Amino acid sequence: MALIVHKYGGTSMGSTERIKNVALRVAKWHDAGHQIVVVPSAMSGETNRLLGLAKEITAQPDPRELDMLASTGEQVSVALLALALQAIGKQAVSYAGWQVAIKTDSAHTKARIGSIDDVKVKADLDAGRIVIITGFQGVDGEGNITTLGRGGSDTSAVAVAAALKAAECLIYTDVDGVYTTDPRVVTDARRLRTVTFEEMLEMASLGSKVLQIRSVEFAGNYRMPTRVLSSLTDPLMPLEEEANSGTLISFEEDTHMEQATITGIAFSRDEAKITVMSVPDKPGIAFQILGPIAEANIEVDMIIQNQSVEGKTDFTFTVPRGEYDKALRVMDAGVKDLIGNGKIVGDTKVSKVSVVGVGMRSHVGIASQMFRTLSEEGINILMISTSEIKISVLIDEKYMELAVRALHKAFGLDQA
Amino acid sequence: MALIVHKYGGTSMGSTERIKNVALRVAKWHDAGHQIVVVPSAMSGETNRLLGLAKEITAQPDPRELDMLASTGEQVSVALLALALQAIGKQAVSYAGWQVAIKTDSAHTKARIGSIDDVKVKADLDAGRIVIITGFQGVDGEGNITTLGRGGSDTSAVAVAAALKAAECLIYTDVDGVYTTDPRVVTDARRLRTVTFEEMLEMASLGSKVLQIRSVEFAGNYRMPTRVLSSLTDPLMPLEEEANSGTLISFEEDTHMEQATITGIAFSRDEAKITVMSVPDKPGIAFQILGPIAEANIEVDMIIQNQSVEGKTDFTFTVPRGEYDKALRVMDAGVKDLIGNGKIVGDTKVSKVSVVGVGMRSHVGIASQMFRTLSEEGINILMISTSEIKISVLIDEKYMELAVRALHKAFGLDQA
Repeated sequence: MALIVHKYGGTSMGSTERIKNVALRVAKWHDAGHQIVVVPSAMSGETNRLLGLAKEITAQPDPRELDMLASTGEQVSVALLALALQAIGKQAVSYAGWQVAIKTDSAHTKARIGSIDDVKVKADLDAGRIVIITGFQGVDGEGNITTLGRGGSDTSAVAVAAALKAAECLIYTDVDGVYTTDPRVVTDARRLRTVTFEEMLEMASLGSKVLQIRSVEFAGNYRMPTRVLSSLTDPLMPLEEEANSGTLISFEEDTHMEQATITGIAFSRDEAKITVMSVPDKPGIAFQILGPIAEANIEVDMIIQNQSVEGKTDFTFTVPRGEYDKALRVMDAGVKDLIGNGKIVGDTKVSKVSVVGVGMRSHVGIASQMFRTLSEEGINILMISTSEIKISVLIDEKYMELAVRALHKAFGLDQA
Repeated sequence: MALIVHKYGGTSMGSTERIKNVALRVAKWHDAGHQIVVVPSAMSGETNRLLGLAKEITAQPDPRELDMLASTGEQVSVALLALALQAIGKQAVSYAGWQVAIKTDSAHTKARIGSIDDVKVKADLDAGRIVIITGFQGVDGEGNITTLGRGGSDTSAVAVAAALKAAECLIYTDVDGVYTTDPRVVTDARRLRTVTFEEMLEMASLGSKVLQIRSVEFAGNYRMPTRVLSSLTDPLMPLEEEANSGTLISFEEDTHMEQATITGIAFSRDEAKITVMSVPDKPGIAFQILGPIAEANIEVDMIIQNQSVEGKTDFTFTVPRGEYDKALRVMDAGVKDLIGNGKIVGDTKVSKVSVVGVGMRSHVGIASQMFRTLSEEGINILMISTSEIKISVLIDEKYMELAVRALHKAFGLDQA
């Protein structure tokens, strides 16, 4: 008998038939005595339809008006889900973000949640109602509707769960959990029963797109146990079984002690590398090169500065592949002067592969095993970056699948 | 340089191309130095699409959730129109009903507007912005979204105009004004340049569906000059010409003195007649018959009680044709006992034709001319009801067009 938050993605809400299935699942949890808050996404395709209308009108839509427009998608979803629950005899009530005061900053289309007022929701729950709240949106200090950016429904759900001090936040999605690596690349990939928050953060940021990274950050900040599980199962499957399915993002490190040193192999195809050659090796050169890139809102990931030779050095960094052309333009405009006759070269055919696991904190030799494995497969490492719980390498993209499979096996992730 | 409210219907907002046309028209008025507030409807078809989704889920949707659902249609419209205005260089901002505090009662799907807070809107207008406000919706005292019922965008527009003390409310629609009668029935029908509020109220209630009747009531309560005009004209037509087109609902009776005694011939096909025969002619019988009908929320229009013969009388009333079956069921359930062995008979093949005009207050003989005209055409009158500014007759529906044409000619409405 706990307070549980359910989140359903756009595919799960994709038709009135599917919405009825969601209602059956939610009702099952309510029947078991739990207090349930549901945060659904817009029906699949709806957000794109709305943004398409805006595009037909103007190539550069005002973010405030885009938020007015796009936020309607979730409002339709919550109303339909409330109707579906009422149709099977449940008391249910829907709220838009502003109605339960999901307060955000004013950064339209990518707002961040500040606070949520829980008075109304608690009163409804105590009265036996199922409460349905729009994901993806809130309201700023001036009463403008804001949206949280693509995938923001995950973040809303975790934020609502944190505000209500929920026992668990269940993210129902079209995959059945977090895997040791992408099963499309490694058929032996295994579903993880639990993953620590820090591991999940690395997995998410490294391209395992099960959850939006900001929702994982939110889960971390509020130590909100969050479970990723499938919305494609029979909605009437036994609740006990469903409650233990998927992958739990946990904040109890102890429970993890028994597990393998390495949790998973993450990877990202979406990489590009830029090298500025023969720059003067002077203090401030890194800032001079990366400052304009940051100003252009381009995220830099890996950074290497080579050993200096005769007062010159090579400076290399990676950016998302979609930002590569923009980054080169920024370099042309703002950096050329600084580097004298240095050359700028780039490569968009690179990928990043990472070994992730909190276990590596207390185990030596993970890096050397990783490098040996890649070496045995004849894979050249272009860049390396490390953190306490992950080691990432940049490699030629054509070797990516090979590297992932070899590492998955080398670290014994194919064994239960 | 006045404050003007524009209202655009669903057809005018029916596509992004049409929304761009609305933006051109609005911008023209703003360019001329006016402060402009726009109240658009949902894109045509959108409200039906949304209600269709609800129907797929449940046959008896909860009104509160229906309002959450249906109100999104107008929110999409205001955002798109704001974008279209911005795209042609105008400053524009959109608001949902709750954001400018269009306060209503809690009668979901048919709420009534109580108050509108004008502070935000006035500030925007003074800053040179065009303000766009969702029609059809508001917010109740508990922060629930309400809608005003079908056609409620007209009412919103007039209410917003009244709250802002606008100089005029322009209702752009797919007809170019109010006519002496329906031009589809009488080809000689003429557009009225002005019509008084009371005449418009009769015309609206008698089936001339140019404006929703509640919007006319609102215009009357606040003496808001309201103009009905075409949205199908060239959006760039000269403003002076556009500003004098259509039909003005006026509150200056003086301007009307020169005009004809009769303003128009209204009619309604949507009638049904119910007669309770041989009821005891006792005090309270009208209430006993009509009480249950009122409780069932069925609107009764014309009522006749015949001269009593031997303590018995016939009691006849009309209801909207769509409510006829329901009314008969109510009579069966609640009235049968009262009327002893009296019979209930009905007729759904009846229509109402009305002669409307404030001029008839000071002119005698209107009724007799009406009855003579109908008599000359061999049309039998089934029921009669009168008010200060209209005389209505119920006739066999097969004579309706003939009656309208004959009366239109008899009262000289075909002459300018």
